[in-house]
Amino acid sequence: MEETAVFLFSCPDRKGIVARVSNFIYRNGGNILHSDEHRDHQLGIFFMRVEWSLAGFRIPKSRLPGEISKLAKELGASYRLYFSSQRPRVAIFVSKLLHCLYDILVRYRSGELNAEIPLIVSNYRDAEPVAEHFGLKFYHFPVTKENRLEQEERELELLRRENIELVVLARYDRILSPKFVEAYRNRIISVHHSFLPAFVGKDAYEQAFRRGVKIIGATAHFVTEELDAGPIIEQDIVRVSHRDSLEDFKRKGEDAEKVVLSRALKWYTERKLLVYDNKTVVFD
Amino acid sequence: MEETAVFLFSCPDRKGIVARVSNFIYRNGGNILHSDEHRDHQLGIFFMRVEWSLAGFRIPKSRLPGEISKLAKELGASYRLYFSSQRPRVAIFVSKLLHCLYDILVRYRSGELNAEIPLIVSNYRDAEPVAEHFGLKFYHFPVTKENRLEQEERELELLRRENIELVVLARYDRILSPKFVEAYRNRIISVHHSFLPAFVGKDAYEQAFRRGVKIIGATAHFVTEELDAGPIIEQDIVRVSHRDSLEDFKRKGEDAEKVVLSRALKWYTERKLLVYDNKTVVFD
Amino acid sequence: MEETAVFLFSCPDRKGIVARVSNFIYRNGGNILHSDEHRDHQLGIFFMRVEWSLAGFRIPKSRLPGEISKLAKELGASYRLYFSSQRPRVAIFVSKLLHCLYDILVRYRSGELNAEIPLIVSNYRDAEPVAEHFGLKFYHFPVTKENRLEQEERELELLRRENIELVVLARYDRILSPKFVEAYRNRIISVHHSFLPAFVGKDAYEQAFRRGVKIIGATAHFVTEELDAGPIIEQDIVRVSHRDSLEDFKRKGEDAEKVVLSRALKWYTERKLLVYDNKTVVFD
Amino acid sequence: MEETAVFLFSCPDRKGIVARVSNFIYRNGGNILHSDEHRDHQLGIFFMRVEWSLAGFRIPKSRLPGEISKLAKELGASYRLYFSSQRPRVAIFVSKLLHCLYDILVRYRSGELNAEIPLIVSNYRDAEPVAEHFGLKFYHFPVTKENRLEQEERELELLRRENIELVVLARYDRILSPKFVEAYRNRIISVHHSFLPAFVGKDAYEQAFRRGVKIIGATAHFVTEELDAGPIIEQDIVRVSHRDSLEDFKRKGEDAEKVVLSRALKWYTERKLLVYDNKTVVFD
Repeated sequence: MEETAVFLFSCPDRKGIVARVSNFIYRNGGNILHSDEHRDHQLGIFFMRVEWSLAGFRIPKSRLPGEISKLAKELGASYRLYFSSQRPRVAIFVSKLLHCLYDILVRYRSGELNAEIPLIVSNYRDAEPVAEHFGLKFYHFPVTKENRLEQEERELELLRRENIELVVLARYDRILSPKFVEAYRNRIISVHHSFLPAFVGKDAYEQAFRRGVKIIGATAHFVTEELDAGPIIEQDIVRVSHRDSLEDFKRKGEDAEKVVLSRALKWYTERKLLVYDNKTVVFD
Repeated sequence: MEETAVFLFSCPDRKGIVARVSNFIYRNGGNILHSDEHRDHQLGIFFMRVEWSLAGFRIPKSRLPGEISKLAKELGASYRLYFSSQRPRVAIFVSKLLHCLYDILVRYRSGELNAEIPLIVSNYRDAEPVAEHFGLKFYHFPVTKENRLEQEERELELLRRENIELVVLARYDRILSPKFVEAYRNRIISVHHSFLPAFVGKDAYEQAFRRGVKIIGATAHFVTEELDAGPIIEQDIVRVSHRDSLEDFKRKGEDAEKVVLSRALKWYTERKLLVYDNKTVVFD
Repeated sequence: MEETAVFLFSCPDRKGIVARVSNFIYRNGGNILHSDEHRDHQLGIFFMRVEWSLAGFRIPKSRLPGEISKLAKELGASYRLYFSSQRPRVAIFVSKLLHCLYDILVRYRSGELNAEIPLIVSNYRDAEPVAEHFGLKFYHFPVTKENRLEQEERELELLRRENIELVVLARYDRILSPKFVEAYRNRIISVHHSFLPAFVGKDAYEQAFRRGVKIIGATAHFVTEELDAGPIIEQDIVRVSHRDSLEDFKRKGEDAEKVVLSRALKWYTERKLLVYDNKTVVFD
Repeated sequence: MEETAVFLFSCPDRKGIVARVSNFIYRNGGNILHSDEHRDHQLGIFFMRVEWSLAGFRIPKSRLPGEISKLAKELGASYRLYFSSQRPRVAIFVSKLLHCLYDILVRYRSGELNAEIPLIVSNYRDAEPVAEHFGLKFYHFPVTKENRLEQEERELELLRRENIELVVLARYDRILSPKFVEAYRNRIISVHHSFLPAFVGKDAYEQAFRRGVKIIGATAHFVTEELDAGPIIEQDIVRVSHRDSLEDFKRKGEDAEKVVLSRALKWYTERKLLVYDNKTVVFD
């Protein structure tokens, strides 16, 4: 695979943005492989993801960040520039339920994810053999009410040392502190075991069971300070009926959990996600 | 189609219920066409729907209610006995959005519903030509804050006169009073334009749009005194994305609304619904 | 709604296409409202749909076709240029099953379709009252083996006279001749009552029922000379089980039929469909 | 969990079957936990699955097979009698794609499957570390055109020795001989990577991609002598679009493969599947 660059940005909508960006790439000999745009006509915001081949591109990679910075300034854009060769380093946080962890790692091993997953963090030891089987490092940080913030400090230190870009909470059963969330703003993806905004918090399946719903779901979202209220990345559902026990709700729901979390992770690693106004743009 | 009887009941779960009921039918020469059961092991309740042919059944139709009453007493059952020849008479309440109304009436005309739909009630005149096209009576009851209860009285009087068993709120934009709800307990089916319990009340699509969900839905439920909190009969969903405007949410959601309301109505007319513990058993 | 233009094209993929097209619009003062692209990397084809506001656009509408023609020539593109004010005129062909017809016309009346539907054509009289209810003209062309081609001539003459751009076969039970197909190449949309390519031809539900499938479906496609083998526009499915009779298959399948045909029609009227290699690009 | 018995049977439909069976259980002090029935009115066949607690049941387990045999004879039934304590022993056959294998084993380990999975069989060595991780035996039978039948003999010998009841082909890339199929009639479950009967045989995703379908699927079925033509147990689907490459088709389709195969396996282990007329009854 040849190396590519991704320019992902949002800016005030006005005439000529696409012309400006595509000219920039074309004039410098770039070959656009994918491009996608979105206009929020209500808010007057323009969003774009453009990916082009660096083979034959006349701006050397070392100078590209500077040139893109100038272009973004001109557009008044918030932006990110990514290179396909710089794969995001991802840490997975998990507790006792391992279905999402396995699902991610099987995809990872099969080459489905353009990421590096060097390590697993857990407040339990259940995932340790899984880490070993897939050749990942395993870090055990038992968390209590008392040592919670202290352990988070050690986790953050580990993440910095390992140069982790993205944290995935794969059914991690602890709530992260505002400080942690701030340190990884829009870079923590969690899966909630309900169709948000229904059934926030713990016991989502119990809540759904009591309410007698006919469909249950799962939601992958970016973590914010407010519980289960961050920008939604993906949702999916499973049908249930009066025949299903609470155990069936859990078992069936776990299939939706796996799917939404893995999709969200994949989109992140492909640089297809933009956050604005507590929503996501998914350039899938 | 030969005439059939449906015995639909719930009772405390204990040994021998199926034997008792099936013996009753067998001994009297009945041929069971469909039967379905459910046990709520947690609450210890047994639910059953059994339908059998009255051709050759040795208990005459006139005496069957008495015999079933005795059987139900023995089982300690809440029950209903239905005959396929006695089709439920249904009134449809509608306001300005007519998609659900059309959907029901097209199915009705094609013979899909084992019901009589003699009339439409509306607080507007928009549905009048639809009533005419399908050969139904149309009643216009304009509702204001002031005349609301008075108009409800007139509506209830009409429903009694027309011997209406079931009221279907097909996007009817008024909230019914507790008195009306009481008069048609478990016999008012409404469609809510969200995936309950998310987005209760008005502006459900606006709420969903603001929250940035990736799936929207619709819910058919029995109406209770508490808004959008009655027993859920059916739910369905439609995918949305950042590309969809609020108008798109509405348009796409309407497809789910039609489907869940028509399914709920069909199940009701087939005597397949049982309500308990603010939930439904759907013997589909 | 202000008037917009849509430039929909495909051409050999090469560098600079987006730059060229967006510059053309920008330089002439156009404001792009939507644009979407697709690259088939395997076949080396580029596809684009770009829609811009004509308010303040410096090329007058009368001269735009000429300018776009020059641009397309330069790109080596097959293309169409559409104006939002020129709504496609659509004729609906129907036989005895009216569910798809109703579904389309209810959407049409609610303003969901940017089209003109002046008339219905049928080989039966069942749809006549529907035409009347919705204020459409109704043409009855009874078709036999013998008069088939002759009737088609009369139909084509009618379509020409009425300036019909698109023909929708809403469960029309006759196969069109190659001549008719040729006259409306990529402008006849039909719905097939199966998940193509499974169960081609008549009796698709019977075939599905015999095979014991657990999901049935429907397919909207452009009609070609080969039966049920044209470019697929949209597909959808419904779950079935051993409990469902053949009648249930039909009834449930009809819901999928309505949905796929109406979506296909909507996309067509919004100029979002491109055909190539017996496939469709759907810029939804 | 207390021990239960499952009586699963089909017989000619006639009056009194449910009464006969439920009386048998009731008279002997059995407590029915689940029961489900189905009548094929067209073919005149009756199907039933009844599960009851053996706690307090007056017929000892040793004598139950004989008593059930008498009952079945009286009904003219084909039947199976199962005890929940006798969990089916399952062998998984796999080749190089391991996603279905992992999916099954993660569920197995979490206690979701009432089965014993002692071993994996493969014509490659890729799955060996997976077997080790989950504590299963691994048998490598490389297969060539020449040694195919010979290797099958060795596999069958292994299955006999290990007392294997069910064979699961989790993307096993070899076709089993009629002799093998006969030895495990209705006891080999395979997953096909298409929505059968569309796209039979190898390269199902390539076929789907070429046809330009908008939905792809997967099918779990019992293996018969005719390729991909056995009784369908479960199907599921995933949406695709013109944006998806052949690689995307494969990756997305694998999610459907996992789901349908795991569901089919779970139903089998719960004794919920009945085969007739090349179809399945799924008492889910």
